[in-house]
Amino acid sequence: MSGNTFGSLFAVTNFGESHGPAIGCVIDGCPPGMALAESDIQPDLDRRRPGTSKFVTQRNEADTVEILSGVYEGRTTGTPICLLIRNTDQRSKDYGDIVQTFRPGHADYTYWRKYGIRDPRGGGRSSARLTAPTVAAGAVAKKWLYEKYGTIFRGCMTQVGELPIGFEDWAHVESNPFFAPLADVSAIEDYMNVLRKSGDSCGARLRVMAEKVPVGLGEPLYDRLDADIGKAMMGLNAVKGVEIGDGFASVAHKGSMHGDSLTAGGGFASNHDGGVLGGISTGQNLEVAIAIKPTSSILVPRESLNTSGQPVDVITKGRHDPCVGIRATPIAQALLALVVMEHALRHRAQCGDVPVPAGFE
Amino acid sequence: MSGNTFGSLFAVTNFGESHGPAIGCVIDGCPPGMALAESDIQPDLDRRRPGTSKFVTQRNEADTVEILSGVYEGRTTGTPICLLIRNTDQRSKDYGDIVQTFRPGHADYTYWRKYGIRDPRGGGRSSARLTAPTVAAGAVAKKWLYEKYGTIFRGCMTQVGELPIGFEDWAHVESNPFFAPLADVSAIEDYMNVLRKSGDSCGARLRVMAEKVPVGLGEPLYDRLDADIGKAMMGLNAVKGVEIGDGFASVAHKGSMHGDSLTAGGGFASNHDGGVLGGISTGQNLEVAIAIKPTSSILVPRESLNTSGQPVDVITKGRHDPCVGIRATPIAQALLALVVMEHALRHRAQCGDVPVPAGFE
Amino acid sequence: MSGNTFGSLFAVTNFGESHGPAIGCVIDGCPPGMALAESDIQPDLDRRRPGTSKFVTQRNEADTVEILSGVYEGRTTGTPICLLIRNTDQRSKDYGDIVQTFRPGHADYTYWRKYGIRDPRGGGRSSARLTAPTVAAGAVAKKWLYEKYGTIFRGCMTQVGELPIGFEDWAHVESNPFFAPLADVSAIEDYMNVLRKSGDSCGARLRVMAEKVPVGLGEPLYDRLDADIGKAMMGLNAVKGVEIGDGFASVAHKGSMHGDSLTAGGGFASNHDGGVLGGISTGQNLEVAIAIKPTSSILVPRESLNTSGQPVDVITKGRHDPCVGIRATPIAQALLALVVMEHALRHRAQCGDVPVPAGFE
Amino acid sequence: MSGNTFGSLFAVTNFGESHGPAIGCVIDGCPPGMALAESDIQPDLDRRRPGTSKFVTQRNEADTVEILSGVYEGRTTGTPICLLIRNTDQRSKDYGDIVQTFRPGHADYTYWRKYGIRDPRGGGRSSARLTAPTVAAGAVAKKWLYEKYGTIFRGCMTQVGELPIGFEDWAHVESNPFFAPLADVSAIEDYMNVLRKSGDSCGARLRVMAEKVPVGLGEPLYDRLDADIGKAMMGLNAVKGVEIGDGFASVAHKGSMHGDSLTAGGGFASNHDGGVLGGISTGQNLEVAIAIKPTSSILVPRESLNTSGQPVDVITKGRHDPCVGIRATPIAQALLALVVMEHALRHRAQCGDVPVPAGFE
Repeated sequence: MSGNTFGSLFAVTNFGESHGPAIGCVIDGCPPGMALAESDIQPDLDRRRPGTSKFVTQRNEADTVEILSGVYEGRTTGTPICLLIRNTDQRSKDYGDIVQTFRPGHADYTYWRKYGIRDPRGGGRSSARLTAPTVAAGAVAKKWLYEKYGTIFRGCMTQVGELPIGFEDWAHVESNPFFAPLADVSAIEDYMNVLRKSGDSCGARLRVMAEKVPVGLGEPLYDRLDADIGKAMMGLNAVKGVEIGDGFASVAHKGSMHGDSLTAGGGFASNHDGGVLGGISTGQNLEVAIAIKPTSSILVPRESLNTSGQPVDVITKGRHDPCVGIRATPIAQALLALVVMEHALRHRAQCGDVPVPAGFE
Repeated sequence: MSGNTFGSLFAVTNFGESHGPAIGCVIDGCPPGMALAESDIQPDLDRRRPGTSKFVTQRNEADTVEILSGVYEGRTTGTPICLLIRNTDQRSKDYGDIVQTFRPGHADYTYWRKYGIRDPRGGGRSSARLTAPTVAAGAVAKKWLYEKYGTIFRGCMTQVGELPIGFEDWAHVESNPFFAPLADVSAIEDYMNVLRKSGDSCGARLRVMAEKVPVGLGEPLYDRLDADIGKAMMGLNAVKGVEIGDGFASVAHKGSMHGDSLTAGGGFASNHDGGVLGGISTGQNLEVAIAIKPTSSILVPRESLNTSGQPVDVITKGRHDPCVGIRATPIAQALLALVVMEHALRHRAQCGDVPVPAGFE
Repeated sequence: MSGNTFGSLFAVTNFGESHGPAIGCVIDGCPPGMALAESDIQPDLDRRRPGTSKFVTQRNEADTVEILSGVYEGRTTGTPICLLIRNTDQRSKDYGDIVQTFRPGHADYTYWRKYGIRDPRGGGRSSARLTAPTVAAGAVAKKWLYEKYGTIFRGCMTQVGELPIGFEDWAHVESNPFFAPLADVSAIEDYMNVLRKSGDSCGARLRVMAEKVPVGLGEPLYDRLDADIGKAMMGLNAVKGVEIGDGFASVAHKGSMHGDSLTAGGGFASNHDGGVLGGISTGQNLEVAIAIKPTSSILVPRESLNTSGQPVDVITKGRHDPCVGIRATPIAQALLALVVMEHALRHRAQCGDVPVPAGFE
Repeated sequence: MSGNTFGSLFAVTNFGESHGPAIGCVIDGCPPGMALAESDIQPDLDRRRPGTSKFVTQRNEADTVEILSGVYEGRTTGTPICLLIRNTDQRSKDYGDIVQTFRPGHADYTYWRKYGIRDPRGGGRSSARLTAPTVAAGAVAKKWLYEKYGTIFRGCMTQVGELPIGFEDWAHVESNPFFAPLADVSAIEDYMNVLRKSGDSCGARLRVMAEKVPVGLGEPLYDRLDADIGKAMMGLNAVKGVEIGDGFASVAHKGSMHGDSLTAGGGFASNHDGGVLGGISTGQNLEVAIAIKPTSSILVPRESLNTSGQPVDVITKGRHDPCVGIRATPIAQALLALVVMEHALRHRAQCGDVPVPAGFE
């Protein structure tokens, strides 16, 4: 209830601070009997982890995950799975100068006002480092969904700052540090190099999608599939906008053009609605887009206040991502997987296995 | 858990179908001792109700609300408040032809596949009529928040179909059927008249905001204030996109320009982040925008399937809104109020009354 | 969260006051496709309702239930089921003298201190009248469990005041107003007649059980099946003790005698544990006993305080049960059904259909 | 939802297995600003830990707790507190012979049937070892409640097997290994010595209480304070009965004797109801009693089945408590503290600080 648990049936409780001894999560509700080892989770953490290119923060964390519970002889037992990641490269002194200063665009001020106290080391709890346990939990959800339904989650960057990124092929996404679906990312590299030298930061636009999502997931009225996607994505650090299907372009659409016609066998002629109708999955691909604001930690000096309410100038040194959107792709995929997983279990609870009607196989 | 309850501490459980005997909700968790009568709720229902202009559905529902519990001698007692709205203008025969047909863009197909059964009368549970109890509950939340903090919720239409709507003054919003902040809405009327004659529908873009929101609301990591706004808005019928603050425009921003600088006394020099930092309210106005897709019920014939999987042509007669976005403004305001109310109670639970620090009064 | 919802997956939200216009509940999460009509629910309400013998309160309520939602053409649709029961025999003037007085043993004082306000009419929200919606919801759960697993719920009185009640046959339970498993209840009638004339009240002990409960229900560590039975029963008005299996007699047991040995096919040689091991159902009968305290509303004068803190003498007139335990049997059965239903859905969510192992059919 | 989280606002998520690498919990919702260190938690763990006398299991675990998150410079920050306890004295080979055998009275069979898989090492998840994280979380709750309200939790053994234990003084409880309120425990030692030599086990009866509980805690209708106490206690390993106040003795009471009269200033003349009326705390001491069944792990051979459904004889070797009730006292105190803590936060959420009325200070 205090906001650190994602989901109810596949419930992921996240803990830790950027510069504390460890971060991690407890997954409660994972179905029993699934093969699971650290090696199923580590690759997703490696996709998200810092220090992998010069375009992301140089903090060096291996993000090695340890399974503390819930797995016996290589299989999930149905009991809580605790995943622990030790912090190893804390440099709290980097942050000494922000203990009594609020960095513009950061959560420094709001945490301090909310709780009356805050852990300033590297942003404490508000650091994007806390997305690592989310990614780890998402890896478990993805594995179960793939084995059960064949569901696959994909994601890519579609714009960085003012630079649009075209789509060539999903295969390229893992071959460059930007998760760009392009063979040649030199334009992105050039853009980022200029940005880094200026000491400034930029935003990004990402696309996330899921294939082979079962029909029927989502709990209207309020816990609709799209609602929970909206929550998951808007809750990711620095996200300021979420679209499903055609998103904001739908405003200018006519109904005669927008509505996706059903075709033989339960297919669809188009996917303007992004795989959700009435809050329930249609069986089409889930299509989601998110807007990520520019990193708030920059070298450019800005005006702010200190904890005494006095004006100060702030420069954020330390190790930071010039575009937090770059590492957000695997996180957004994990979040989408957690949403689908939760709704898969909810659907099974209420409806059991609803038979596929004749003509819709 | 089955998705019909909004919130946990100010928990609104919604029930009913478009053409059943009644719709309504139960509010559990309303603080005791607040003066409350039907007359506090009815005005918001009247703003949302159908039949008030030729630009919305001609279904004639008074939407009269009855308080069945939770109020004694005009004051809330802290026990559940049941709000009942009888349906009075059901015309189920209007919908006879869609019993075995899936209307493109509607929830017909997904409800049928999810549950193996669906109530086809007026869309049943998936009808936008079920937003009425949400609006009623929102009126209760709004009253408490206003009395406690002075919080005010506003909303307006900013685009209808391809037609952008400028902003003149909030005062105009209640003076025209479109919730447009304009003195002269003749251009919107002309646009809608052409649309209605074509038998087609269009989308809309709305702005919703809240003033005088206390600092410190929101429960990171996952139940952030912005996350719950994302969920509430994306869960509203026909919404396909949500933005907070600068939204998708943030993608092309630089960090040096985007970060909102703090000014003396805890004010801010700008509001690019829309009143939320790190998932917690800053005390600035909450600024939200939503994209609403065109109404799926249109007279233009479209291809679809029936429940036997056979191809059919669908024309949706009956009484429908040519732009569901028109009546969505009061609903989106109510949803924003429910989110703020929930987080106000959550914050009080964990943090009590955190004192305002010196220099930030 | 404010305590008026029972269960999460089969979530029953209860509303109403003893002398308000109506009481009722919303059931969210009922599986779709089950035949359901008022006639499936009314018999259980009739078993609980007042005025059926001279040994219970003479308030005359038909307790007629109306299904407001969630059922289409006689079948559940998977959407919320609102059950409404209008109050018809309110006599608020009976309670005028307790508006400013706290009746000993009642919730008058605690509601007033908790909320700063209370509805004094007939106990308001704290009245046992609010068990009617629980019974109605339990009828829905019982029907689903019976159709799915053949589960049957039984209950009877085993002691009234100082008078122990032997067990002859379940068949007798519905043939007398005490839910006693006896052919001849004249001893109970005599006991109650003496009690009524004295203006006093007495307690009762009840037994509740369930047959054909599937193996595997219950969610350890905390949401164990026995834990949730403990909560449901201890939460019933006037209950002061709960036992499962041998209950308090287990204290003096030896392990060599207490542990239930498994027998061929997954049966058991005894049932000291009452059908639960490690918080999970064994497939044996669930066996529960509860202690109900004497009715607090009595004609015998007692010392108390008024809302100004001044000493007063209290006599509770009005219409009351001399032994609230008499009508508690159907309520306790309903509560047990709600617990089993909730865990049946939870189990299905996490574990799906775990195959029955060879040798345990 | 899968049952490993206790509470909603002070939410304790428990993880681990008896012979896995570690056990622990995450506390979400702890109010910020409270001084907290391992030394505040360790004493309660030490009271519960094994190996401290010859009357409990000889497993040697230091149960050293490590705070992994949620505390900064010695104060809680309002973010999740992860408490980790490494297992150090696993001897899994002790349990090799029960991998394919169901011990009567244990959860072996039910876990296996529920999940289709179980961790047999020391009972895996069903081991009483998993009460250690509960005790650790309870220590945090106790500290906050004491600092806020002066609330104190006490507990003692009142019967072991057939031997009743009189009450002399709370001061004696910490001076003997049985938590008996007696200066001279030689009778208990004699009883236990005979029992241990016989290779058998026995049950126990405990009393738990809380002093200085604020008036007004508890959320009726369903989440009553007594209901949640019932759940917490019945959910503790081996508990088969729970009483509040006079418990089962209430059955034979008359109303004229049972109802607790209010006295000047909001006191009471008696406490038959154990500190709860209508599900809400009265401000009197909470008085709870629990029945604990005999340990199921005994040397006496018993009949059972193996996983192939074949009859086998079972003798449980390894290290076990001859009376699990002995170490249950600190656990039951912790559980009561967690219940009170949860309701203290819930009450604050809905009702804020209800002023104490004149005459009731």
